[in-house]
Amino acid sequence: MKKPKVVVLGAGYGGLMTVTRLTKHVGVNEAEITLVNKHNYHYETTWLHEACAGTLHHDRCRYEIKSVINTSRINFVQDTVTGININEKKVTLSNGELEYDYLVIALGAMPETFGIAGLKEYAFSISNINGARQLREHIEYQFATFNNDAEKKKERLSIIVGGAGFTGIEFLGELCNRVPELCREYDIDQKNVRIICVEAAPTVLPGFDPGLVDYAVNYLEGKGVEFKIGTAIKECTPDGIIVSKDDKQEEIKAGTVVWAAGVRGNSIVEEAGFENNRGRVKVNPHLLVEGHDDVFIIGDCSLIINEENNRPYPPTAQIAMQQGVTCAKNIGRLIRGQDNLEEFTPDIKGTVASLGEHNAVGVVYGKNLTGTKASIMKKVIDNRSLFLVGGPGLVLKKGKFKFF
Amino acid sequence: MKKPKVVVLGAGYGGLMTVTRLTKHVGVNEAEITLVNKHNYHYETTWLHEACAGTLHHDRCRYEIKSVINTSRINFVQDTVTGININEKKVTLSNGELEYDYLVIALGAMPETFGIAGLKEYAFSISNINGARQLREHIEYQFATFNNDAEKKKERLSIIVGGAGFTGIEFLGELCNRVPELCREYDIDQKNVRIICVEAAPTVLPGFDPGLVDYAVNYLEGKGVEFKIGTAIKECTPDGIIVSKDDKQEEIKAGTVVWAAGVRGNSIVEEAGFENNRGRVKVNPHLLVEGHDDVFIIGDCSLIINEENNRPYPPTAQIAMQQGVTCAKNIGRLIRGQDNLEEFTPDIKGTVASLGEHNAVGVVYGKNLTGTKASIMKKVIDNRSLFLVGGPGLVLKKGKFKFF
Repeated sequence: MKKPKVVVLGAGYGGLMTVTRLTKHVGVNEAEITLVNKHNYHYETTWLHEACAGTLHHDRCRYEIKSVINTSRINFVQDTVTGININEKKVTLSNGELEYDYLVIALGAMPETFGIAGLKEYAFSISNINGARQLREHIEYQFATFNNDAEKKKERLSIIVGGAGFTGIEFLGELCNRVPELCREYDIDQKNVRIICVEAAPTVLPGFDPGLVDYAVNYLEGKGVEFKIGTAIKECTPDGIIVSKDDKQEEIKAGTVVWAAGVRGNSIVEEAGFENNRGRVKVNPHLLVEGHDDVFIIGDCSLIINEENNRPYPPTAQIAMQQGVTCAKNIGRLIRGQDNLEEFTPDIKGTVASLGEHNAVGVVYGKNLTGTKASIMKKVIDNRSLFLVGGPGLVLKKGKFKFF
Repeated sequence: MKKPKVVVLGAGYGGLMTVTRLTKHVGVNEAEITLVNKHNYHYETTWLHEACAGTLHHDRCRYEIKSVINTSRINFVQDTVTGININEKKVTLSNGELEYDYLVIALGAMPETFGIAGLKEYAFSISNINGARQLREHIEYQFATFNNDAEKKKERLSIIVGGAGFTGIEFLGELCNRVPELCREYDIDQKNVRIICVEAAPTVLPGFDPGLVDYAVNYLEGKGVEFKIGTAIKECTPDGIIVSKDDKQEEIKAGTVVWAAGVRGNSIVEEAGFENNRGRVKVNPHLLVEGHDDVFIIGDCSLIINEENNRPYPPTAQIAMQQGVTCAKNIGRLIRGQDNLEEFTPDIKGTVASLGEHNAVGVVYGKNLTGTKASIMKKVIDNRSLFLVGGPGLVLKKGKFKFF
């Protein structure tokens, strides 16, 4: 009898969790498991703001996939997914194709620019290791060039962060720590540097308790961040951005523009023909796509509704990992012909946004936290995701311990 | 009686040596000494190829001027010299002017581009700390960007070095050590990187023994450097360079072009009206400008003829420092009305070109050296220049000791 083929696309939080759990729920002879990923490494998406700012080396934010999977059980294919053919049950890759009996789509998010002109061309995003290295070096190059310009241009040292959501605020926190280092390295008076956060919504960190929002804003403003709230970016140009507030337009020149104001699901999911909303597909409680009992979608490409407020859960690493656990169980049951599939319910343990290395704001088990306590909890959360994927060994190798 | 005013322009090897020796040859009440320099630091011009490549941090290549001069004896003015008025005995600065009774011009060299189109605009040079930091970061940014480009462009990783003289060869040696580090940092296969040295003259390291030249070329070629000898750069463009050999033109695309093929004296010297050759002024044996018994010119702006071959000595740190010693003595004698001025004769102890951290070629006390021995001698030479200016304390602070 032929073993069913399980193909998992993406080795992010969701995909990696799925394959590591699959080897527990599925016997050696029960399935052939293949994991496909563009790179030979997994990276911690939720740590990228640190690599982008240059406060944490990118090698601390990634680890080799083969170091955490059982390679005698899982066939790892390093390749880029170019398409999914649901009818033929095939996945096409840059260098080949794969057939599947069960498919797990865990391809992650892409930046959503909402059609704002110039963002794709001129703004950086916080989305992967290659981009993080480039952004880090781009910022550093602006500082390295400043004193060497015949006519010193202050705007070269301005950094605009589009978006005051979770990622934007965390990136601002890192920048506040990094800029003084860069000023020392390149003999620059910090008065020449501007960090500007532009947010179209009426508030910073939407969804957070107002007390936590105030704490974060006051802290970042104290470090020199200028907030422009209720202000929309109309266009990004090679020289900076054009914003609009109350119908008044203004140009803000800047050497660096970072777009951190939104993500969408993966375009592969749209092209595959699933009913979707910006690349996110509503999945059933078993994490299966409606009408396709062999296709799971988890992580940032999946859409699940929070019944408390009837709005979608935001795409987070926490949910992706929990979905991976359920998905692995359900694949095991499907393979064995069982129909008692587990229903997925997110278990939100907490949400903490860091404000640099030693500060943070957030909610853990329903309790608001700020300052050192929140910062410690943030590191506990970061270490926990390592633990879930790679056990104590990975925590020791890549964990964050230097609390003070 | 008014104390004579001694003004020294430039805190490079020559100027710094002059002021530190002046305080020994001139009493507290005999003269008022002023040192003018653009930055508050001195930098080791002969180490800049390392800072440019990124193999030695630029802070290792510089030290605060006030840390090596006696500030109770020497008035340090941080300002940029904008002109010299010999008739009025005045020096104009960006933010003021200074009168002098004795002037020492030690303003150093500038890159000489021989009128080659585009070099000033698009090529980097190895000439100061600000430029070194920018070049280091420019190269790193090319590597950081490579994997993030939609279409990977190998030429982004090509580095062209114009000139196979002393500086060009030393910079190539550092690049050979730096490139593998950059490839590891940015996940790049080193096969994608090209290091190309273009030299118009028929040989590498002109003036060196052919055996040493062969050693250097073989070593660098073994590390991957491509030499294009007898090849002239016709033009530098934003995309690379256009070269010409035997009337055949060729374009070489490169993300980085570094011009290391020549220096000239300072333009301030030309503008001051001295008879000069590319900013270098022929001085008399006392280091005074002919016809101006109150103006000394030392270092890269001075021209002295080697009577053995009737050609000018190349501008080196070694000669500049020796000139500083003679210059300080002669100022002391002039102030005291003595006419027994010392005649300057260069005492060439050796010339060693480094090939990265652990290799070098050169001549020391007439003996040809290669490999580890030459590399150790190079570091002895580097430490000696620190010792002469700042004594054992400066050697301990900034010296190069890690031989192996």
